[in-house]
Amino acid sequence: MSLIVQKYGGTSVGDPERIKNVAQRAARWHAAGHQLVVVVSAMSGETNRLTALAQEVAANPAARELDVVLSTGEQVTIGLLCMALHELGAGARSFTGGQVRILTDQTHGKARILSIGEDNLRHSLNAGQIAVVAGFQGVDEHGNITTLGRGGSDTTGVALAAALQADECQIYTDVDGVYTTDPRIVPEAKKLDAITFEEMLEMSSLGSKVLQIRSVEFASKYQVRLRVLSSLSTEEDMLPHAGTLITADQTDEGSAMEQPIISGIAFNRNEAKLTVQGVPDRPGVASQILSAVAAANIDVDMIIQNVGHDGATDFSFTVNRSEYQQALALLQGLQARLGATGVSGDEHICKVSAVGVGMRSHPGVASKMFGALSDEGINIQMISTSEIKISVVINEKYLELAVRSLHQAFDLAQSDQPVA
Amino acid sequence: MSLIVQKYGGTSVGDPERIKNVAQRAARWHAAGHQLVVVVSAMSGETNRLTALAQEVAANPAARELDVVLSTGEQVTIGLLCMALHELGAGARSFTGGQVRILTDQTHGKARILSIGEDNLRHSLNAGQIAVVAGFQGVDEHGNITTLGRGGSDTTGVALAAALQADECQIYTDVDGVYTTDPRIVPEAKKLDAITFEEMLEMSSLGSKVLQIRSVEFASKYQVRLRVLSSLSTEEDMLPHAGTLITADQTDEGSAMEQPIISGIAFNRNEAKLTVQGVPDRPGVASQILSAVAAANIDVDMIIQNVGHDGATDFSFTVNRSEYQQALALLQGLQARLGATGVSGDEHICKVSAVGVGMRSHPGVASKMFGALSDEGINIQMISTSEIKISVVINEKYLELAVRSLHQAFDLAQSDQPVA
Repeated sequence: MSLIVQKYGGTSVGDPERIKNVAQRAARWHAAGHQLVVVVSAMSGETNRLTALAQEVAANPAARELDVVLSTGEQVTIGLLCMALHELGAGARSFTGGQVRILTDQTHGKARILSIGEDNLRHSLNAGQIAVVAGFQGVDEHGNITTLGRGGSDTTGVALAAALQADECQIYTDVDGVYTTDPRIVPEAKKLDAITFEEMLEMSSLGSKVLQIRSVEFASKYQVRLRVLSSLSTEEDMLPHAGTLITADQTDEGSAMEQPIISGIAFNRNEAKLTVQGVPDRPGVASQILSAVAAANIDVDMIIQNVGHDGATDFSFTVNRSEYQQALALLQGLQARLGATGVSGDEHICKVSAVGVGMRSHPGVASKMFGALSDEGINIQMISTSEIKISVVINEKYLELAVRSLHQAFDLAQSDQPVA
Repeated sequence: MSLIVQKYGGTSVGDPERIKNVAQRAARWHAAGHQLVVVVSAMSGETNRLTALAQEVAANPAARELDVVLSTGEQVTIGLLCMALHELGAGARSFTGGQVRILTDQTHGKARILSIGEDNLRHSLNAGQIAVVAGFQGVDEHGNITTLGRGGSDTTGVALAAALQADECQIYTDVDGVYTTDPRIVPEAKKLDAITFEEMLEMSSLGSKVLQIRSVEFASKYQVRLRVLSSLSTEEDMLPHAGTLITADQTDEGSAMEQPIISGIAFNRNEAKLTVQGVPDRPGVASQILSAVAAANIDVDMIIQNVGHDGATDFSFTVNRSEYQQALALLQGLQARLGATGVSGDEHICKVSAVGVGMRSHPGVASKMFGALSDEGINIQMISTSEIKISVVINEKYLELAVRSLHQAFDLAQSDQPVA
């Protein structure tokens, strides 16, 4: 008998019919002899409806009260799901965040989980019930309702799995796993049976939006075995290779022989780049630029600075495209004070990344990647690397071509064979 | 400085605009120097929407889970109302039933309040905040969410007023008070400035549905000064004679000289009468009939049995019209066992009642009432009396005529003058 935590998002519980489908799946796992904790989001559209109501009442609603309102979305779902489970003859009991007790800090709207009480859930599980928990919410030490912010239901699932030392945390979504790249761009893209936490973090932040980054970080930290599955398929979720397993080490699941060097090609077409030219090459300049950007609440992704020459250097970074104009104006206003010779930018760029833990032990990945892009005549504007990722910034018009050629170059359509 | 509890029903908080209106009223009382606790219902339509969702999922939803779902309706309103109050610059803090803590028994769907924690509310009031409380809900000793049943928000308001020893509990509704009778039948019907708890109980149960009976009982038991007011008027609620005050004794508010004998004419057109004829006039027969009726879950209103003759008597009672056919069939099945000579009934009847504490000390009220009906040629089919009420059953076609003639006979259009 295993203890499984399943998490279902808003689309999976979007209407009474879908809630009944989720109930059938949960009841099937329960009937197979597993202890089951099910975490659910608000029905799709509900959070937006509640947010709109709040905004009709107040331009800038107090965060504490917004949490009171928004947390009702998940509360409705847990009640309905329990009713549907009862209809199938399965014992089930609902828990709000406060009833579990999921203790958080007091940062309304994006609270962090401090601790999770096990007793109430264990009591329910030991009584043979399916414990149905409201995602996205908790309470602070004074009993105020808090929410974890959008996507927080994934975090709730992982945190419960960690606290209960669950055998697996299953995140049900509308895709059947993590792919080598976006199948809309590369039709031969292949579902990965397994991926490491680190790779998943790079894939998520680079635009493959299957899981919330925060929940992956959490799973990594607490060594929770995490699996992404489709809530649309019916029986396949019980097969050993269902979905994509996200683990500390790929070799958990297969032999090292089969470990690919590159797991996937991620991309982000929603960025813009900015460069401050000819800034004095002395300590403190980078910090001066970035603190001004941070003060304007603009998130920075890649940051690049090459060696200087003649006492000056160029400093570049990328931002979300929607914040490009604001960032550009800010830098122009800063130019004189920085002693820079110019400010330039481009919002018609994209970022393409090859991600894989295998590259740690295999040299030559970067060279292969740059060669493949060069063969297609694609100019590389910026390069940034981490231990398990190589990212390039290129003209956005080459995005599809670059992703396809890299997918091909690293042989990802047959990713069960090592490629180098 | 007084401590006021205000309760607003679903219509008063039916949309964001109305919520803002409630906020303005509450902020005005707060600015006038009062400590304020505001109890709110779910936005109108919300409880029905949630009930419908539950019924799409399960034919017979578990009461515990239905409470989890339904209690979100009020939770949304408290958050929204606090946001609206903040917009007006008023300090405000929302409280779910559990956060107050309103402790109830475990009877989901119609829980009874066991105790009310004062500390959290006092803390908020002492900090100068308006405390906004979700009506209709509480928690049991295990932290399970309970609801008090429909109309339970009135009860929450009265219970909070009792616990906090509030100076007044104001129930805002869509009428501006309790009337001498239904103004749709008697246009000259007059708003009563004051009415006693007992009269209000008789008026409520007889069909003047301004307040939930249970909340009036509660107010009576704990001597809460209760006032019914219109949420539609704007400034008048601060006048001394606003709405209708419901108190232990009418002479609290005016001199005994002005106390009317009859406060109002109530009626119910939704009843049917049944008679078991010629039952043996011996102990146990009434109990035998009524226990069979109760076992079928049929509520009985009036019960009449006159003196017998020749060892037999007739036993009559009234039921809700929707249960008439079921009750009739039940009695027919019982007739032989009772040794009765027949069973008859009539669903085309109505009940009209004169209510007033004054009749306790003034003889002649019944005679005046029967005389007025007789003058109009209205035949009285059944009579039942209590200390402060005289009810008659008549043919339903005479309902409007009877109400108008009694309203006239007791001079209720000028109810500030004694009438006998």
